[in-house]
Amino acid sequence: MKFELHHASGPAGPRTGTVHTPHGSFPTPAFMTVGTQGTVKGVTPEQVRATGAGILLGNTYHLLLRPGPELLERAGGLHRFMRWDGPILTDSGGFQVFSLGHINRIGEDGVVFKNPLNGDLVDLTPERSIATQHAIGGDILMAFDDCPPAGGDDPAAARERSKLAMERTHRWLDRCVAFHRGRGRDGRQALFGIVQGGTDEGDRAACVEAVCSHDLPGYAIGGVAVGEDTAAIDRIVAHTAPLMPADKPRYLMGVGYPRDIVAAVRSGVDLFDCVLPTRHGRSGHAFTAAGALKLKNAPFREDFAVLEDACDCPACVGGYTRAYLHHLVKCGEILGGVLLTLHNLRLYQRLMADLRATIPGGRWDAFFSRWPCAIGPEEGQAADERR
Amino acid sequence: MKFELHHASGPAGPRTGTVHTPHGSFPTPAFMTVGTQGTVKGVTPEQVRATGAGILLGNTYHLLLRPGPELLERAGGLHRFMRWDGPILTDSGGFQVFSLGHINRIGEDGVVFKNPLNGDLVDLTPERSIATQHAIGGDILMAFDDCPPAGGDDPAAARERSKLAMERTHRWLDRCVAFHRGRGRDGRQALFGIVQGGTDEGDRAACVEAVCSHDLPGYAIGGVAVGEDTAAIDRIVAHTAPLMPADKPRYLMGVGYPRDIVAAVRSGVDLFDCVLPTRHGRSGHAFTAAGALKLKNAPFREDFAVLEDACDCPACVGGYTRAYLHHLVKCGEILGGVLLTLHNLRLYQRLMADLRATIPGGRWDAFFSRWPCAIGPEEGQAADERR
Ligand SMILES: [Zn+2]
Ligand SMILES: [Zn+2]
Repeated sequence: MKFELHHASGPAGPRTGTVHTPHGSFPTPAFMTVGTQGTVKGVTPEQVRATGAGILLGNTYHLLLRPGPELLERAGGLHRFMRWDGPILTDSGGFQVFSLGHINRIGEDGVVFKNPLNGDLVDLTPERSIATQHAIGGDILMAFDDCPPAGGDDPAAARERSKLAMERTHRWLDRCVAFHRGRGRDGRQALFGIVQGGTDEGDRAACVEAVCSHDLPGYAIGGVAVGEDTAAIDRIVAHTAPLMPADKPRYLMGVGYPRDIVAAVRSGVDLFDCVLPTRHGRSGHAFTAAGALKLKNAPFREDFAVLEDACDCPACVGGYTRAYLHHLVKCGEILGGVLLTLHNLRLYQRLMADLRATIPGGRWDAFFSRWPCAIGPEEGQAADERR
Repeated sequence: MKFELHHASGPAGPRTGTVHTPHGSFPTPAFMTVGTQGTVKGVTPEQVRATGAGILLGNTYHLLLRPGPELLERAGGLHRFMRWDGPILTDSGGFQVFSLGHINRIGEDGVVFKNPLNGDLVDLTPERSIATQHAIGGDILMAFDDCPPAGGDDPAAARERSKLAMERTHRWLDRCVAFHRGRGRDGRQALFGIVQGGTDEGDRAACVEAVCSHDLPGYAIGGVAVGEDTAAIDRIVAHTAPLMPADKPRYLMGVGYPRDIVAAVRSGVDLFDCVLPTRHGRSGHAFTAAGALKLKNAPFREDFAVLEDACDCPACVGGYTRAYLHHLVKCGEILGGVLLTLHNLRLYQRLMADLRATIPGGRWDAFFSRWPCAIGPEEGQAADERR
């Protein structure tokens, strides 16, 4: 993997670039479409490509359980298995293990969790995470880190746990890097480190120093969008991103709404992923430049306009009206979720393209007039909806 | 609507033709893709068109309840609403009312049933069925008939009920024809009559005489594939189809498996519809020329072949392996149902195209060597699975 920086608006400002991988290149800032368990839900890779997506994200946790790394290796890797020939990034599995709540034991070696499909205990260590990601065959891999859910009732205990997680994350990163390099995968698969540190600026700075001491091809900001409010996310990202090496891509994991992405891009972040466009599509919501539409609502019953006149997605170009989408959503018809997913994925790619076009000239007022949805937090946008 | 007969292999044999409608023409024998409530489940009209489908079927029962005839009229009819510009046939709503079991009262005027969505009582009369079909705007409409479920514990009572249904169906046909012609829709929308009569050959013959005494543009065989065995279906179709006017299309409603369709085509039937390719696709089954595959089964886990080498559907051409489809089906991923639906719909259209190509030369041995699935009933193919 190689990162080419085209334009940087000062040390703490937005940048444009290109990421080159063995499966092709894509421009940054980029939104990575989530293909959880080997599929972007409801749509074909060809349709995903047509939204403008340059890179997909696969979830190691889900792929480890089904179909499993052995089968994926026999299939020739995830690219061949799911018929996506572009770049793929895989996460480490850690976030799902820690957030889906099937943990049996956490120790210095790693995590033992219960396979929710059959009750078996599964060991997930830094080494096993990386080995699984090798089998999946993604172009970018993520280090396995200790990321316990934020907070807790006892502030002192939470603080203690957070400190342990940071230190352990750094030890686990050493093991990930050693294992990855030992397997000789460094050329074809790029391992990214993850900066944790919660909402504390000092902890974030310490993490940046520890993680970036490994000369890795890219770095991520983790532990964001796990329950904080929008202002806290903005603050942490604006603090952390500029501390990270300028010549490496910066990836903000699991973020977010259009406004969160725009704010983070302006702080110098290059890569994003989020389930929002697909998950919200399946639940009957359309993102638009003016804000989100809940298609199930009564006013859409007789609204014979398309979702967005300016949109070139298959739903809008195809002439499917809001009234028709309302009907499909009310009936629970799959096609409603499919069309809304295609629209939402295209909207996110249009947003990223406009960000890339805006960055060199810096005409942000004009940008925000095109994207009113990116100006401030939307009403009723709960923090826990983000991921 | 105009029916052009190209080739007829004798009075009781297979035929080829073309049906011309205000929304375009299609060759017969034809399989009509079912788009129950304004969508072929999971796929876009563009994808349906690419399977080779020439005509869609819409269900009046479902469309009457949602989105309702008033909204469909405001939307400019079902063609515009769902973005399908080819021919559409609508059923009368009767089959669903009688089979879905929400009937409140059946009388000479019509049926009163309970709307399962809100508990309201809904009147469905011959006139209201035709008026609803006018609002939907299909190219071919079906008469509203009395079609009680077959059988019952008391043979004498069942026979009595069946006799009443036949007579009432004929009186209701008179009302459908009068209402349809009275509204001046005869030019743009073609009303088909339905021949009932159960499994009794005398009753079928009497029905043909009564129904075909109306000079209608086409006729259907109804009340088949509602629980009989394959042999009974074959017998009734072989008996009834040749009695129907040779210069009008003959439509066998709700049939069926590839073998049922091939048998009926050889008895002179021109039109078919069935939910099997779509419903079986969503439940993880692929039709192939050699028989059906249940993708969830363990042997497909490591089967890296596509569904059928000879198939030109997006799933097979796209290189999606049986192992990948197994994975999607096991995970309950929407894309599995979508890809299997596209394959199955294409298989049905390939079958119909081969039937049309085979009829003029009559080389049926060669046909069956290409379509072993059409030779005999498949194992475990329950009669009640058909509809
Ligand atoms: Zn759109
Ligand atoms: Zn196929």
